[in-house]
Amino acid sequence: MTALLDELIEANGSFAQSFDAGGLPSPPGRGLAVLVCMDARIDPAKAIGLDLGDAHVIRNAGGRASDDAIRSLIISSRLLDTREFVVVHHTDCGMLTFSNDDLRTKLRDEAQADASGIDFLPFDDLEMSVREDVDRIRTSPFIDPAIPVSGWIYDVKNGQLKEVVAVEA
Amino acid sequence: MTALLDELIEANGSFAQSFDAGGLPSPPGRGLAVLVCMDARIDPAKAIGLDLGDAHVIRNAGGRASDDAIRSLIISSRLLDTREFVVVHHTDCGMLTFSNDDLRTKLRDEAQADASGIDFLPFDDLEMSVREDVDRIRTSPFIDPAIPVSGWIYDVKNGQLKEVVAVEA
Repeated sequence: MTALLDELIEANGSFAQSFDAGGLPSPPGRGLAVLVCMDARIDPAKAIGLDLGDAHVIRNAGGRASDDAIRSLIISSRLLDTREFVVVHHTDCGMLTFSNDDLRTKLRDEAQADASGIDFLPFDDLEMSVREDVDRIRTSPFIDPAIPVSGWIYDVKNGQLKEVVAVEA
Repeated sequence: MTALLDELIEANGSFAQSFDAGGLPSPPGRGLAVLVCMDARIDPAKAIGLDLGDAHVIRNAGGRASDDAIRSLIISSRLLDTREFVVVHHTDCGMLTFSNDDLRTKLRDEAQADASGIDFLPFDDLEMSVREDVDRIRTSPFIDPAIPVSGWIYDVKNGQLKEVVAVEA
């Protein structure tokens, strides 16, 4: 057990003592799935007012609509009845700061590992990255085209969301 | 704008009005990355006491150590200096309720789409799924073997975490 794990377990003990959401069903109550960057400065539940049981929360480096995010959205909508998707990238994202070549070189140098086959999905235009990911979800053959998908940028300096891609009429 | 989006935006307005975490740096303050299922009944920040800026939060269907989760963990540790990983699956998980064949058949019937090439990563043994995912991270050639990785099951009925795979000595 690491010192950090001790802290997390102690926090969980306090959390569980006052836990009162034991009767929630598996399908999200608000029929929502959000795809958000893993960034430590974002708490999706707080930022958009989600309670326990409200929404699926999918997060990865960049909040990208990777194949795995699409896998999660398929399961979310086809098996657990979500009916709306929201994509959130953010200002000052780490994905703006490196290239695939940078990280591949680092992995070769630090781990003697060949990452030439991995696309780390970095981007150099934040708004464009949101548009790409919304488009990727909307055009997936596995996603119901009736599901509204919107795209947003979260500002880590002030906590505000700004719309990039609106829900289509 | 959907009715649900209106609600989320209104909630974000209230959140942003009292936002006071604008100065946080990008690397997680507690050097932690957690990999958790997307399930709506789990709020990782509340469940283990994470504040804004503390930890990367990676989430997908099942909390699986998919290639994309590994991509996120590589970026988290190699570029943003996280030094400990925690994997959390949970009781009553949707991933226990279907097979790849079930979902592929559903997608063929509902969307006339061929998902035969997609592994949706369902599982039928919860503890085993945690062990598999911790092992997959520990044995990745791209992850520093010095990083402690532990595996846990979150009980959605009472909010408690139970250890499945301890950090190796």
